[in-house]
Amino acid sequence: MAAKYVYFFGNGQAEGRAEMKNLLGGKGANLAEMTSIGLPVPPGFTITTEVCTEFYKNDRQYPASLKAEVEANLRKVEELMGRKFGDAENPLLVSVRSGARASMPGMMDTILNLGLNDITVQGIIRQANDSRFAYDAYRRFVQMYSDVVMGMDKHALEHLLEQKKEARGVHLDTELTADDWKELVGDFKAKIKETLGQSFPEDPQEQLWGAVGAVFGSWMNQRAITYRKLNSIPADWGTAVNVQSMVFGNMGNDCATGVAFTRDPSTGDNYFYGEYLVNAQGEDVVAGIRTPQPINKANGDSGLPSMEEVMPECYTQLVKIRSILENHYKDMQDIEFTIEKDKLFMLQTRNGKRTARAAVKVAVDMMKEGLIDEKTAVLRVAPSQLDQLLHPSLDPKAPRNVIAKGLPASPGAVSGEVVFTADEAEAAAKLGLKVILVRVETSPEDIHGMHAAQGILTARGGMTSHAAVVARGMGKCCVAGCGDIKVDYANECFATNGGTVLKKGDIITLDGSTGEVMVGEVPTVAPQLTGDFGILMGWVDKFRTLKVRTNADTPHDSKVAREFGAEGIGLCRTEHMFFDADRIAAVREMILSSDVEGRKKALTKILPMQKGDFLGIFREMKDLPVTIRLLDPPLHEFLPHEDKDIEELAKTMGVSVQALKSKVEFLHEFNPMLGHRGCRLGITFPEIYDMQVQAIMEAACELVKNEGFTIVPEIMIPLIATVKELKVLKNNAVAVCEEVIGRYGVKIEYLIGTMIELPRAALTADEIAAEAEFFSFGTNDLTQTTFGLSRDDSGKFLPFYVDSGILEEDPFVSLDQNGVGQLVKMGCEKGRATRAKIKLGICGEHGGDPSSVIFCHKIGLDYVSCSPFRVPIARLAAAHAALGEAVDLTK
Amino acid sequence: MAAKYVYFFGNGQAEGRAEMKNLLGGKGANLAEMTSIGLPVPPGFTITTEVCTEFYKNDRQYPASLKAEVEANLRKVEELMGRKFGDAENPLLVSVRSGARASMPGMMDTILNLGLNDITVQGIIRQANDSRFAYDAYRRFVQMYSDVVMGMDKHALEHLLEQKKEARGVHLDTELTADDWKELVGDFKAKIKETLGQSFPEDPQEQLWGAVGAVFGSWMNQRAITYRKLNSIPADWGTAVNVQSMVFGNMGNDCATGVAFTRDPSTGDNYFYGEYLVNAQGEDVVAGIRTPQPINKANGDSGLPSMEEVMPECYTQLVKIRSILENHYKDMQDIEFTIEKDKLFMLQTRNGKRTARAAVKVAVDMMKEGLIDEKTAVLRVAPSQLDQLLHPSLDPKAPRNVIAKGLPASPGAVSGEVVFTADEAEAAAKLGLKVILVRVETSPEDIHGMHAAQGILTARGGMTSHAAVVARGMGKCCVAGCGDIKVDYANECFATNGGTVLKKGDIITLDGSTGEVMVGEVPTVAPQLTGDFGILMGWVDKFRTLKVRTNADTPHDSKVAREFGAEGIGLCRTEHMFFDADRIAAVREMILSSDVEGRKKALTKILPMQKGDFLGIFREMKDLPVTIRLLDPPLHEFLPHEDKDIEELAKTMGVSVQALKSKVEFLHEFNPMLGHRGCRLGITFPEIYDMQVQAIMEAACELVKNEGFTIVPEIMIPLIATVKELKVLKNNAVAVCEEVIGRYGVKIEYLIGTMIELPRAALTADEIAAEAEFFSFGTNDLTQTTFGLSRDDSGKFLPFYVDSGILEEDPFVSLDQNGVGQLVKMGCEKGRATRAKIKLGICGEHGGDPSSVIFCHKIGLDYVSCSPFRVPIARLAAAHAALGEAVDLTK
Repeated sequence: MAAKYVYFFGNGQAEGRAEMKNLLGGKGANLAEMTSIGLPVPPGFTITTEVCTEFYKNDRQYPASLKAEVEANLRKVEELMGRKFGDAENPLLVSVRSGARASMPGMMDTILNLGLNDITVQGIIRQANDSRFAYDAYRRFVQMYSDVVMGMDKHALEHLLEQKKEARGVHLDTELTADDWKELVGDFKAKIKETLGQSFPEDPQEQLWGAVGAVFGSWMNQRAITYRKLNSIPADWGTAVNVQSMVFGNMGNDCATGVAFTRDPSTGDNYFYGEYLVNAQGEDVVAGIRTPQPINKANGDSGLPSMEEVMPECYTQLVKIRSILENHYKDMQDIEFTIEKDKLFMLQTRNGKRTARAAVKVAVDMMKEGLIDEKTAVLRVAPSQLDQLLHPSLDPKAPRNVIAKGLPASPGAVSGEVVFTADEAEAAAKLGLKVILVRVETSPEDIHGMHAAQGILTARGGMTSHAAVVARGMGKCCVAGCGDIKVDYANECFATNGGTVLKKGDIITLDGSTGEVMVGEVPTVAPQLTGDFGILMGWVDKFRTLKVRTNADTPHDSKVAREFGAEGIGLCRTEHMFFDADRIAAVREMILSSDVEGRKKALTKILPMQKGDFLGIFREMKDLPVTIRLLDPPLHEFLPHEDKDIEELAKTMGVSVQALKSKVEFLHEFNPMLGHRGCRLGITFPEIYDMQVQAIMEAACELVKNEGFTIVPEIMIPLIATVKELKVLKNNAVAVCEEVIGRYGVKIEYLIGTMIELPRAALTADEIAAEAEFFSFGTNDLTQTTFGLSRDDSGKFLPFYVDSGILEEDPFVSLDQNGVGQLVKMGCEKGRATRAKIKLGICGEHGGDPSSVIFCHKIGLDYVSCSPFRVPIARLAAAHAALGEAVDLTK
Repeated sequence: MAAKYVYFFGNGQAEGRAEMKNLLGGKGANLAEMTSIGLPVPPGFTITTEVCTEFYKNDRQYPASLKAEVEANLRKVEELMGRKFGDAENPLLVSVRSGARASMPGMMDTILNLGLNDITVQGIIRQANDSRFAYDAYRRFVQMYSDVVMGMDKHALEHLLEQKKEARGVHLDTELTADDWKELVGDFKAKIKETLGQSFPEDPQEQLWGAVGAVFGSWMNQRAITYRKLNSIPADWGTAVNVQSMVFGNMGNDCATGVAFTRDPSTGDNYFYGEYLVNAQGEDVVAGIRTPQPINKANGDSGLPSMEEVMPECYTQLVKIRSILENHYKDMQDIEFTIEKDKLFMLQTRNGKRTARAAVKVAVDMMKEGLIDEKTAVLRVAPSQLDQLLHPSLDPKAPRNVIAKGLPASPGAVSGEVVFTADEAEAAAKLGLKVILVRVETSPEDIHGMHAAQGILTARGGMTSHAAVVARGMGKCCVAGCGDIKVDYANECFATNGGTVLKKGDIITLDGSTGEVMVGEVPTVAPQLTGDFGILMGWVDKFRTLKVRTNADTPHDSKVAREFGAEGIGLCRTEHMFFDADRIAAVREMILSSDVEGRKKALTKILPMQKGDFLGIFREMKDLPVTIRLLDPPLHEFLPHEDKDIEELAKTMGVSVQALKSKVEFLHEFNPMLGHRGCRLGITFPEIYDMQVQAIMEAACELVKNEGFTIVPEIMIPLIATVKELKVLKNNAVAVCEEVIGRYGVKIEYLIGTMIELPRAALTADEIAAEAEFFSFGTNDLTQTTFGLSRDDSGKFLPFYVDSGILEEDPFVSLDQNGVGQLVKMGCEKGRATRAKIKLGICGEHGGDPSSVIFCHKIGLDYVSCSPFRVPIARLAAAHAALGEAVDLTK
């Protein structure tokens, strides 16, 4: 039996359902669903994603049975509409749109008004009784089709349009007449023939298949590939094609088109949020060419009449539909509608993209409204999205030099240098510069620049313009439709109404929550973690089983992390403490000593300072576990390397330049990453680790004795490759611990464990667990050694690897589950085989990456540890993992 | 039932057997065996190695039943000897010696004449009718016992002896009288009491248990630990203690003592080889204090009477015993004997240590004599030993300035700087210097220096002196007993009889096969691989199943390797070819090009030279497989780094210094080992690999087409971490190969495979095998990444790791089977799971290390590949592996 490739929808009946997104794409599935629940949807049909997959598998050939299926479904649409495709009298026009499983705004191409030619346009004129409308629709179709399907440079046709307006002495498209448009259709076709050497197709069937091919073709265009890469969408998902009968929002002033969200996608507030344009096609709203009007007063007073006032009946119907959709989908919806001659049609519904703030608020509100339960609420917020909430906002007390105000399109508070092109933004970001991309409006070609920029400022376009939608998806700060500014690309500057001129390279600050644009850098304050966020995180903590600790080296970081919900410290690095201005001299004295006695003398000076560090950290983490890693980096990191600095230091230290230089040379390493560091220092210079262990234990004993703390210090020995190293160092540490405990006369437990950060440690974890009381997987170094890849040196080829798909993701960002993950899993299993109750955690930066956290949950770690600002993300990811959800739900 | 801790031997009856070496130690087992086969062995008993193990397990306490067992066995010895231990009239004296499972020459301590005190010495005087002998024995006992058991500084007693000789106006010990010795015994005891605060024990029981304790104690002394480490002997094997009734070689001129080998241990020649001393104790022969006499004329004419002449009856008896022992043990024996009043006693037999040359000759001869079969002959030669035979000997045509001649104690031809202490030798070796250790005589304290030196030259001592025995064991060149030289430690020089004076740091050459000492460095020639060596290797190849290839980058190396029996090339590195003076300019031009076109232009210049390389190698390896690795090192290795060199190169290349400097800086890497190298170069600069593949295939096609070769080139892509890298590069390579094949119009197969040298490659070998047609385990890099250990940087701590036992062996020398080996095994299993017939080999330097080769055989590799000079070692190791022998048989 042949596969079914086409699914029909129309007149309250549909072959598809909302659950069939994988097959029909998001748009197709929802058109079917809306049809089924009785919403007014223009009839049409969906060509499945399987066809796309087959298409690419079979060298861009369609399945044999597709043509007949499309024919049959087109007949059904014709019957329902009472029109015929290509008919001279009563022609059916259709739209052809893409619709992938995951929503990909702006990525895919759309053709409207398909079916128009010199004959059918006459039928439209007669039906609409409006030749200007008919020829406007026709010229739009020719423009769109020639661009998207035929590969015509669209500027050539726009140039003809400009010439026409000049010839007519007018400025606006709306001032052109039916005849002007008719002439332009002829001019366009002639130009296309001249440029491409082929005629614009007159046959509606040829038009239809050309458009279908273009939709499938656009699945593999560079923009789509980029978007998929940024959003981790597999290429083999494919896109569906939706062919739907046209309805027109631009057939007169009783027509309109609009987009809306059932709640505010920026704040999550529960009011009907949206924009519309009278006498316009949908593309006019999204493209940001005309500034749209609000659908109601709740959207703020723009000075323009709202839909509620202008079209009260349609508005009332739309409000009902809003309620039906939210009750049906149990989630905030993003809808598109068109009004043709006072009749409302729904063109799309989908789960609305939203900011992190909105995601949290909508989830908490819907739970309170009884629409969803706590679990669903938790699953509604993507862990990666939380990042937006965990970053600073503008300090309300700081002075602001506001020079312009636009729409608060995507929240955040960012500063950076002004740039005017996406390429500049990308180039600057590669140099580590922070930039704000300033554009008249953005288009899909700008995506890489938007990604690279800190924030986006546009002069035109509304809350649902390309810039706004994409920025919210990316979690980027965006101020859109800022009519106060005039962008001058040629001179690389923009001017405000107030007369301020800002050039490329000038610093500005954007506030995406207010729409304010400020000159210079405005200071920021820490995020607020109360309210809805606090409520949601409360539910999160009910469901997760994985503990979340933090990587913190100072009392301040410890405090911040605790506020973010950290349940202890998983990694306290001690080397940063060595760099303090008041102790680096003693550290260097230690390194330059040629014997144990000299080193011990210098270490004696460092001891009280180290002890002070640990006192501070233990106090902040009162009664929570703290894992302290002993010195890890090679000693040469503490010495200068440039001749000038060496000479200076030699003077300060009272040693000869030559002696210092030869020490620096002696300590030089070809591959410091694989050199004399970690526990290898502890083996060759036991006095260093002894001092550190003494400092840890004295701090702990003091707090236990004098302040009644309960502390179980976890002493972590880095870079273990063999159990014998750990045996030697554990013996040394135990001796120091027991001495200190005896001296203080307190009762205190302590654990001695190790990082598992070398492949050999994972491979022999069964042996190592005989000595280690805990393991912490150091997945940064483990990734470096497993891949044979230096993080510091990978910049020259790793981006190319990710761009070209050799690596799906940067393995330093998201744990390579397939390779490095095998070692982590092996380490866990072997460790537990020897010591059933061994404590297992991860302290690489992957501990704050959602998919890595889910992996850690699955293989049964006890905790993850990450930077303070990522603790809530890890908590949420852990809850998702526990709830059995391994996918990012906003995708 | 209590364990049996003591085994008796005497009067033709013994409780032990030769096979009980693990329990009784080598010496004890062979004393028992010799007793059983009717040889004249003084009766005694062996305390088992289990007691040693128990002793260390139980905090240096003996098992409870030991005392009674020793008592009972002592009674049996007393009965057989008709003497009583501690008896005033007819006292039994015993020796107490160690005897471990593996022979450890000079490592363990021995006590002779135990049982003597002021009372029993009177009994000995009466029995021997020689008070001088008795007091000499007594003073020797006091010296030995106080040194070994009581920890007395032996020089203090020697000083008293010197004083006595001075007081008596004599030079030699032999000139002292009985009264002198008697007085000295008193002086010694007084000095001991004065120094140690404890009396010398008079009670023979106390003496006995003190000596037993000292033997066990010496198992853990530093010398023993060092020897075990050098020879990979586990500490828990323990030593046995042999208590045996004394016989005396120093009771007059009808007494003697000697050591002999049943064949020449240096050449393997089949004659009775040995030395003896009249009127001496055994220690006098081994210590090298008196130069011994040959046992027969076959040992050369030393001008001194041989045992054959002086003691013909005993000699005849000894010749019979030689024959009995070889027929019994089927191996060359190392024996010790003593003649007391014309009566021969056997004190020891063991398999004799021998040079590689002797090992080969003895094995081949014994096979021919019908004593052993081919398998046994193959197993008789340790693979690691072969190294000695595979190195150069002195060029017979080169002029030699011979300044002295000593005994040819251990063969080899080496040159180096003269040093006079073991510590100097070790320090110099660490700096990479070649040194010759020159000593009056060596002692166990010198072992580390002997190990570090290229060769050893001693002024005193015979062919069985400490220096000679240890050097042969180590495979070190040694000239011993070179009476032509006078060593002056104080002035750090030695003078020859001819008047030449050589200072520390002067270069000398030793020929261990002739005993010649030459000034300066004498050139060497390649080893001969014919004769017995060829016969043995023929048997070797019958038994082994593992193939042996070579690592060779030039036609010359390929030729040498083929002569050594290589069955193909397992690793042909192409980077060395890039350094040739006539092509480095083109290589640099390629690196400095900023675009593909520039690089391609430069590569076009390199192509014909690369093709020439491969033509030469293919010709040498006619019809054998050749695996060629594409470019591996990072590009910066081909550029200079010093300012001066950069300036010079800039001038030559006609580029600006600044441009060249910034390129060098741009290419700089923090961890080049983990950087932009291997296949990462092939991914980012595909034109480089394309050129190399083209050169390989053009060379192969040319030989197939014009010279009728059968070639299956194996193209190896290095540093693969993910299958996708290999997929991309394989596609590129296949395209180039097909183009070349098409162009030449020949039929030729080729394989594309990869190195497995990163942990991730081993972990995902199942995926990689989908693309790879062969795997070659690059265990050098795999060891670096698995351990996180840079070979170039490990010198600062790795020696300490090995010295302190944290690592048993340097993992770059012998494959870390426990860690890295897991990945190799995993790679094999996963690779074969995907592609059952995948070709598997190893090309790290471990391919020439015997224990690693045996590992490779066990896990089922198809071949190992090693440097040309190690090919025979690998072949022999592979035969041992196939014969099921995983242990080094000379141990």
